[in-house]
Amino acid sequence: MVTSYPQALLGLDLVGVFAFALSGGLVGVRKGLDIFGVLVLACVTALGGGVLRDVVLDVRPVGLTDWRLVLAAVIAGLVAFGYAHVVQRLSKLVLTFDALGLATFAIAGTVKALSLDAPALESVLIGLMTAVGGGMVRDVLAGVVPEVLRTQLYAVPALAGSALLVALTSLDVTGPVPSIVCAGFVFAVRMAALRWHWSAPRSPRSLP
Amino acid sequence: MVTSYPQALLGLDLVGVFAFALSGGLVGVRKGLDIFGVLVLACVTALGGGVLRDVVLDVRPVGLTDWRLVLAAVIAGLVAFGYAHVVQRLSKLVLTFDALGLATFAIAGTVKALSLDAPALESVLIGLMTAVGGGMVRDVLAGVVPEVLRTQLYAVPALAGSALLVALTSLDVTGPVPSIVCAGFVFAVRMAALRWHWSAPRSPRSLP
Amino acid sequence: MVTSYPQALLGLDLVGVFAFALSGGLVGVRKGLDIFGVLVLACVTALGGGVLRDVVLDVRPVGLTDWRLVLAAVIAGLVAFGYAHVVQRLSKLVLTFDALGLATFAIAGTVKALSLDAPALESVLIGLMTAVGGGMVRDVLAGVVPEVLRTQLYAVPALAGSALLVALTSLDVTGPVPSIVCAGFVFAVRMAALRWHWSAPRSPRSLP
Repeated sequence: MVTSYPQALLGLDLVGVFAFALSGGLVGVRKGLDIFGVLVLACVTALGGGVLRDVVLDVRPVGLTDWRLVLAAVIAGLVAFGYAHVVQRLSKLVLTFDALGLATFAIAGTVKALSLDAPALESVLIGLMTAVGGGMVRDVLAGVVPEVLRTQLYAVPALAGSALLVALTSLDVTGPVPSIVCAGFVFAVRMAALRWHWSAPRSPRSLP
Repeated sequence: MVTSYPQALLGLDLVGVFAFALSGGLVGVRKGLDIFGVLVLACVTALGGGVLRDVVLDVRPVGLTDWRLVLAAVIAGLVAFGYAHVVQRLSKLVLTFDALGLATFAIAGTVKALSLDAPALESVLIGLMTAVGGGMVRDVLAGVVPEVLRTQLYAVPALAGSALLVALTSLDVTGPVPSIVCAGFVFAVRMAALRWHWSAPRSPRSLP
Repeated sequence: MVTSYPQALLGLDLVGVFAFALSGGLVGVRKGLDIFGVLVLACVTALGGGVLRDVVLDVRPVGLTDWRLVLAAVIAGLVAFGYAHVVQRLSKLVLTFDALGLATFAIAGTVKALSLDAPALESVLIGLMTAVGGGMVRDVLAGVVPEVLRTQLYAVPALAGSALLVALTSLDVTGPVPSIVCAGFVFAVRMAALRWHWSAPRSPRSLP
């Protein structure tokens, strides 16, 4: 049982929405979109993963019903639009916010799946899908091959963090602390992979 | 309460399906697809937004169960295929049908959400999603950055029309007339934005 | 009534998942993705169509809950990664596996829809959507125009096989044999179209 479900989950969702909306908004500014295009891309990136999670879990998507999530996405989109000139030299910022969204959404997805009594495998996979869904949609709309396919260790930390939380929950270690620890673990592994260019093997000979 | 739900909604859905199927079919012809590729793109564009709406609202998608909608999409796809040589000099035609689909689907999405007792915010967002969903899928499949991200005032009129309808409904102004007025408002604003090249601000300095 | 539902459907799903995961994995190797990117693309391709089917049918997606399907996708992804150098001269292999997935998923989608008492039209369309969904997502993520839009007779055999199965079922010809015959029919037509370059007409004059 996840004890402090609603507040902890709302908190995770809010951080993830804000971080992904910033990353989506910055991609939009980079592509030269106008303010409304930037806001649409920010909102789709921020709310996409959670809507996908809730559709698969067969519940009404909170990303469309809870004004706090929508407001967080819009504010982050406006920040990305208005302060793009400040952050333009910080080229790692999109990746950092993306990593923060990855971490919080992996755990938010897993927490919500567990709270709806989903089995272990499904909870892990829903955590992964929540984490990578919004960024996938962002990259497909922006016309680039998604981050999750091309960069080092993107899906793996999300998968590991979700699996860790499912394992802890099955040992009755629940509450906000394990969730925060697992989210921190995902974020740390992803940032370390970016920092030290950890890479996974490629196929020895590429196809022609 | 939306009084004349089924007929009015079916009418809106039919017009939107026909218009979006024409726009999808014309994009397919432009891309040099064969007749079946054109029909698939027409149907996905036409039925995509409504299926998305119904999945989020947790009801069976009418776009897959009502033969009238499927037939309208197929006929519009055949028209786009067969008369492409007639319309090839009318380069604004895709945009006009797209605007008509945008308008009718924004209102059809909002009407259906309200009829299922969705709250105000969700009804507006579902209207927007219904309106832009099909065109987004069309453009992603055709390999271009979606209209909704790159052109002037695409999402905004849909959002405004949906919000207007929700406001009118909360004032007990219901029935087919407000729906038609709101759809006309969306269409008029979108066409005006195209005609006079209304543009929204871009970020002062683009990212590198 | 579909009599031997669970086993027959699981069998179809397993073959389709394995075939589509191989095709997705090989596309990933061709794109030069690392092993995790290849596995993600294999799993999304393999499980995407079934998840879409189950979401539209409003049931929990088996692609996320049944470990046998997930395991089949992962194994096929590893095979694609590990033996890419063996198969690199067999350029038709991706297309053959894709055709096998198309055939089994068209029938698996139709069988599941019928078993949930969906009407005839919906059952056919859900079969088609299950068949083409995973490959569409694969191609969109890999940044190419989807197979279903650009190659000869891709959607048509899936549609015809699904319609044939619905017709047989309405004549009380049920059980595993008609399913296998219909899947074989889809596969044979698709492979024949590839072999002899069957092509459908294009619009006489393309748009500029």
